[in-house]
Amino acid sequence: MNFFDLIKKRSSIRAYKERPVSEEQVEKLLNAANSAPSAGNLQSYKILVIRSEEVREKLVKAAHGQKFLSQAPVVFAFLQDKERSRDKYGDRGEFYSLQDGTIAATYLQLAAVELGLGSCWIGAFDDEAVIDALPSSKRPLALLPVGYPARTSRNDSVRRELEEIAEFIE
Amino acid sequence: MNFFDLIKKRSSIRAYKERPVSEEQVEKLLNAANSAPSAGNLQSYKILVIRSEEVREKLVKAAHGQKFLSQAPVVFAFLQDKERSRDKYGDRGEFYSLQDGTIAATYLQLAAVELGLGSCWIGAFDDEAVIDALPSSKRPLALLPVGYPARTSRNDSVRRELEEIAEFIE
Repeated sequence: MNFFDLIKKRSSIRAYKERPVSEEQVEKLLNAANSAPSAGNLQSYKILVIRSEEVREKLVKAAHGQKFLSQAPVVFAFLQDKERSRDKYGDRGEFYSLQDGTIAATYLQLAAVELGLGSCWIGAFDDEAVIDALPSSKRPLALLPVGYPARTSRNDSVRRELEEIAEFIE
Repeated sequence: MNFFDLIKKRSSIRAYKERPVSEEQVEKLLNAANSAPSAGNLQSYKILVIRSEEVREKLVKAAHGQKFLSQAPVVFAFLQDKERSRDKYGDRGEFYSLQDGTIAATYLQLAAVELGLGSCWIGAFDDEAVIDALPSSKRPLALLPVGYPARTSRNDSVRRELEEIAEFIE
């Protein structure tokens, strides 16, 4: 699948089959995230790979009841490691580390599509409640439940017109 | 090229051929960015497509002398449209819009690889100087020069071990 077909295929999947995601698939997904660019190649983020049902249930509550977080066999939580970036870049490190984790999550989500899996980017959660659910005090940037899509879907969300998002400076 | 090959091929390109990037390629790149997920599908970002040599020279200065910004035939500047996201999400909109623009830039950079082009993610710049160079007062999130790579390169940056970036919660 070339990249243009891949992004056409990607859509927000909110219902998953019970079929598990294998260790090997998880490793491929993590390797994809790990190859994302980052400021100064510092990779100032942390990824928690959550299979625990108890923790996933807590994440549902932290994410205002988004139930499919507990239905997906695995959830990837991307956390910002701002101290790591701050050590080298000072205040700007906070911005860099937020981007580092975001780019890595984007890579993981696209790799999931390549593997025939689906996911949904969740950014709507209570930071403190997520932190309480996890063994880390770092700021959560994204929660990505991943699993086999329960139904076929296509990316048919309407997007803004190019004329509206882009401006040309010749 | 499947996604795993694509990300293996991607590397930071800092030298470009004079060969231009066509209108059609620019449109494909923008469409890729435009298909990225965003909070509430709001797409709270703006993309400036900069071919002007004068503006690219100003960006070199704003980015602490990163000369290849003026060598690339086209530079994409991703700006944060935080007002757009704030209207719906209040304070959290600032976080969402920063991520929206970052994810869109990631899509554009990967699409460039698919087209045989190269780019380099530039985050090291003086925000105010970039704003002064551009016809927009929105916060710049990333500058992506894009062009044909002047030499072949491979992504051989050493990454952190998976054990170091990931933690498993069973």
